Amino acid sequence: MNHMIQGHQLIALKWRKSELGKWRWLLLSSVMISITIYLVPSLQIFGSIGAVSAGLDLGKEGPLVHIGACISSLLAQGGPDNHRVKWKWMRYFNNDRDRRDLITCGSSAGVCAAFRAPVGGVLFALEEVATWWRSALLWRTFFSTAIVVVVLRASIEYCNTGKCGLFGKGGLIMFDVSDVSVYYHLLDVVPVVVIGVIGGLLGSLYNHLLHKVLILYNLINQKGRICKMLLSLSVALFTSVCLYFLPFLAKCSPCDPDLLGTICPSTGRTGNFKQFNCPPGYYNDLASLLHTSNDDAVRNLFSTSTPNEYHPTSLLIHFGLYCILGLFTFGIAVPSGLFLPIILMGASYGRLLGICAAPYTKIDQGLYAVLGAAALMAGSMRMTVSLCVIFLELTNNLLLLPITMIVLLIAKTVGDCFNPSIYEIILELKGLPFLEAHPEPWMRNLTVGELADAKSPVVTLCGVEKVARIVEVLRNTTHNGFPVVDQGVTPPIGAPGCATELHGLILRAHLVAALKKKWFSSEKRRTEEWEVREKFTSVDLAERGMTIEEVIVTKDEMELYMDLHPLTNTTPYTVVESMSVAKAMVLFRQVGLRHMLIVPKYQAAGVPPVIGILTRQDLRASNILTAFPHLEETERKRK
Amino acid sequence: MNHMIQGHQLIALKWRKSELGKWRWLLLSSVMISITIYLVPSLQIFGSIGAVSAGLDLGKEGPLVHIGACISSLLAQGGPDNHRVKWKWMRYFNNDRDRRDLITCGSSAGVCAAFRAPVGGVLFALEEVATWWRSALLWRTFFSTAIVVVVLRASIEYCNTGKCGLFGKGGLIMFDVSDVSVYYHLLDVVPVVVIGVIGGLLGSLYNHLLHKVLILYNLINQKGRICKMLLSLSVALFTSVCLYFLPFLAKCSPCDPDLLGTICPSTGRTGNFKQFNCPPGYYNDLASLLHTSNDDAVRNLFSTSTPNEYHPTSLLIHFGLYCILGLFTFGIAVPSGLFLPIILMGASYGRLLGICAAPYTKIDQGLYAVLGAAALMAGSMRMTVSLCVIFLELTNNLLLLPITMIVLLIAKTVGDCFNPSIYEIILELKGLPFLEAHPEPWMRNLTVGELADAKSPVVTLCGVEKVARIVEVLRNTTHNGFPVVDQGVTPPIGAPGCATELHGLILRAHLVAALKKKWFSSEKRRTEEWEVREKFTSVDLAERGMTIEEVIVTKDEMELYMDLHPLTNTTPYTVVESMSVAKAMVLFRQVGLRHMLIVPKYQAAGVPPVIGILTRQDLRASNILTAFPHLEETERKRK
Repeated sequence: MNHMIQGHQLIALKWRKSELGKWRWLLLSSVMISITIYLVPSLQIFGSIGAVSAGLDLGKEGPLVHIGACISSLLAQGGPDNHRVKWKWMRYFNNDRDRRDLITCGSSAGVCAAFRAPVGGVLFALEEVATWWRSALLWRTFFSTAIVVVVLRASIEYCNTGKCGLFGKGGLIMFDVSDVSVYYHLLDVVPVVVIGVIGGLLGSLYNHLLHKVLILYNLINQKGRICKMLLSLSVALFTSVCLYFLPFLAKCSPCDPDLLGTICPSTGRTGNFKQFNCPPGYYNDLASLLHTSNDDAVRNLFSTSTPNEYHPTSLLIHFGLYCILGLFTFGIAVPSGLFLPIILMGASYGRLLGICAAPYTKIDQGLYAVLGAAALMAGSMRMTVSLCVIFLELTNNLLLLPITMIVLLIAKTVGDCFNPSIYEIILELKGLPFLEAHPEPWMRNLTVGELADAKSPVVTLCGVEKVARIVEVLRNTTHNGFPVVDQGVTPPIGAPGCATELHGLILRAHLVAALKKKWFSSEKRRTEEWEVREKFTSVDLAERGMTIEEVIVTKDEMELYMDLHPLTNTTPYTVVESMSVAKAMVLFRQVGLRHMLIVPKYQAAGVPPVIGILTRQDLRASNILTAFPHLEETERKRK
Repeated sequence: MNHMIQGHQLIALKWRKSELGKWRWLLLSSVMISITIYLVPSLQIFGSIGAVSAGLDLGKEGPLVHIGACISSLLAQGGPDNHRVKWKWMRYFNNDRDRRDLITCGSSAGVCAAFRAPVGGVLFALEEVATWWRSALLWRTFFSTAIVVVVLRASIEYCNTGKCGLFGKGGLIMFDVSDVSVYYHLLDVVPVVVIGVIGGLLGSLYNHLLHKVLILYNLINQKGRICKMLLSLSVALFTSVCLYFLPFLAKCSPCDPDLLGTICPSTGRTGNFKQFNCPPGYYNDLASLLHTSNDDAVRNLFSTSTPNEYHPTSLLIHFGLYCILGLFTFGIAVPSGLFLPIILMGASYGRLLGICAAPYTKIDQGLYAVLGAAALMAGSMRMTVSLCVIFLELTNNLLLLPITMIVLLIAKTVGDCFNPSIYEIILELKGLPFLEAHPEPWMRNLTVGELADAKSPVVTLCGVEKVARIVEVLRNTTHNGFPVVDQGVTPPIGAPGCATELHGLILRAHLVAALKKKWFSSEKRRTEEWEVREKFTSVDLAERGMTIEEVIVTKDEMELYMDLHPLTNTTPYTVVESMSVAKAMVLFRQVGLRHMLIVPKYQAAGVPPVIGILTRQDLRASNILTAFPHLEETERKRK
């Protein structure tokens, strides 16, 4: 019993240490988040800021989320690989779970910084980022975004005194539409439903087309740096030409007498009602949308109580242009986010619909633009609660909430009928090992045993193994975990080698650590607990990133033995071979596993104690379908 | 293989059927929610409405959540047991998973109806109600609350035309403080932190005292109906006396000249600045808080731009009174919610603090009241994101969000240092089998094998079992699942009975259904697949609620055999005996299990294939501690 529990205890020890880190967690995440906020401009300056200020149809939220995640991942490791900070307390975060959590916090901080939406950031992380959620993560991300918003608030306050030039203008709410009273009646539900349905259709169409464009871009980008750059340059050139020349197509409109002289026409860097090529007292509506930053364009489209500001043709041109730009800009070699392009597209189509529905409805056209943006977002990204809160925090109009919810739900439902969300499409395209949230129906007709049979046979180690064999296995495979098999209590006669009972699972990192520590013995024997405790500290085993190539093992040492028992996780999660892949996948995802061992249904002499080992990669629908192409067909026929 | 997969296929079939129900889901939940909204007043009329209008210190959100959950549970079953609606499509919801989901939706609808906070309702369900979350639940609860809010909005619109009398006055936002501009500086963080810390301390103190009071009340309530009623009556009497007579202690204050004549003094049913016993032009500040409904009292406390309305002594009296009432009202035999009492307490202490901090801060006293309420809520209930959103939706002041987040986090952190959340305390007290979210540290030192040893030995059935034995087992035990053991492929000689290999797990409900269907055969043989398909439909197996007492088995039938193979779930989740309880509990909770089988680490002749079966009840910390009292002590010593 003592022997059996050792590995487990060591792992428990490690775990406990990291559990102690609540205060460290708080400290670290606040440091991280503050750094995110302040570092972002300096890191982004060459990429995102350049792209956004060039007027490209890109959002800054994508890069912000990415940078937030990168910084937190780096911090969790103590810094980049070559200049790693070796503070001892930081090492405790150097485990998979805490790193994953920190990355989630970082990305929610990014969303929060981009939209000034703290709760929206938390929910975005919950709904879209994290594949595995636990309750502690909720308050951790919440804490991160709280710090971001406080830092943001302090910066805004500081900058409002005029010390930062144009930087930092504006409040915590980006697209405030709270000044308009929302009156709506039951009949207004009709245009709202229409917005939702069209949003869902357009969103899924956008996903479909973007998928094709991204495949094309991948081919172009693979051809080398010159092609990459030429592509980016031509998109930038096309954008600039369109943005500058298209407003000449629009007619000049006379300013509303109430606004004349005060805000209409405007010639400054920001503002609605741009004068551009028009005589005084007149404004060019298309220029108000195109000759400005993307944020301001959204603000102009969302502007309320301006029912006749935009001609339908101008909106149509704007919508058409941004559909084209939205498809062709994402995917070029520039840091880019998807939120803002979709908001721009959706806002102009919403406002267009608002003009069409104007005779029958009392809802302001600015609110139509908000709803249109929400509908297109939901139609493309398929989020509900987080989008709802992000829009609430962007627009600060609580009374709009009921219709926003309806629009989001309709658009998501319509979109789901056609294709998966844009994120899933991009993940699939990039070949990232993202495990789907739900098992596919055909996964119920396949057992994990069949899945294991289709793979190459599993590589197992013995409880007390020769060093040479361990080094060979580590060098020749890329697996991150190996089942450890052992002789049972009563080894049956004639069983081959040591392979009669499953002892547990050992991680590659632990094997490498043990090799580095020279955990060798000259005889084939099991070690005592005190020996292990003397040799290894919990920090040793938490260390990551070492490779077998860095470890030098002499020829003499190759002949020695290593007792793997104390380093083995004796209670890995196992499933029997007859379990359906669907069920196994639920287990894998819910518990957040990295390896799952498949054991035979009936153990008998001659049957190996482990049939296979499943990883995240093996359980992905597309990978399974490559091995079993008939499955989807059968399922399709059944339908 | 064919035999092995049968049970699994049947269950998969059942599952698939219920998966088809997306549209049914939508339909059913919208029906349910609309019913909730309209039925609630009629069901509540004797309980909650009476209690709230009697001025008891109770909220209506508790009963609303409860009713929402009850209605959805009833709907999922097709109605109450005796008058069950047998619509065929409704039967598909009659499985554990959908029922659980519907209950979650119902409770989120309740919160939404109580606070008119749709997103807050979703997050409340996520953070506090559901023990097992999956992504589909997010949009389902979101859909429920969207329907609630649309129905609410329509009702409000209808009632605003004056057709409902006083009922339905007010908008979607209950405690609107959006009219005040929030200006705050970095220095204002100090009082905000103080509010948070005190909120956390008070909250945990409240939890501690409420625990003691509830224990006392449990003793009183157990003594019979008379005692129960006397207790309720005396609390009601005490409340009424205090509410009426305490305002005589307060001095009359002159009305602000700006408000004189318009809203000060007021004598109507609602309104701030009650005249009560004061001469014209004067108002009694304590009467403004006590001679009114709880909602209005909160509204008065949250009222902004009224810095000198309340004397500190009046607020102190109010705070003291509501501390006492808050402790002694919850737990009497009246439907009651905890939110409003805590908001009342917190608002008066926040406003008190605001008066103290007035010389140093620019934050409005009404906002202090909001922050105080938030702090006390977080200190007692330990929620973060959902509270934050509920407060945002209650007060409609987005600019307050950053400080609300800080206050919530501080209060939660301070409170967590002392005791668990009030919900956990109540759950513990009621002895409900609620599985804790996190394993206790000492659970890592106990294996599931040890836990199984401490229980009575597991009751197993054979793959082909005698009817008499099944009936006997069903009658003499209360277990809901039984492991089915079988002879292995190569039965070793001398193994006792049929117990050599684990075949799977069979549910009590399926056994009863099979007995009722007379699934008997005269010989001890395995059945063919077509026999099963002929005999059982997927609906038969989804049926719940039948007991063994309702099934009549004749004496002759007792001698027959039943083949359990096709009804057995051949791939139950299993863990090896050496797994720590902590790890097993994570699996149990994350995958949402009801039974978990414990298998031996090493299988050998003579070792039973199943060591034990763990249920939710077995994994609860308090139950484990009863069996292993030394564990907590060891853990405490280690610290």
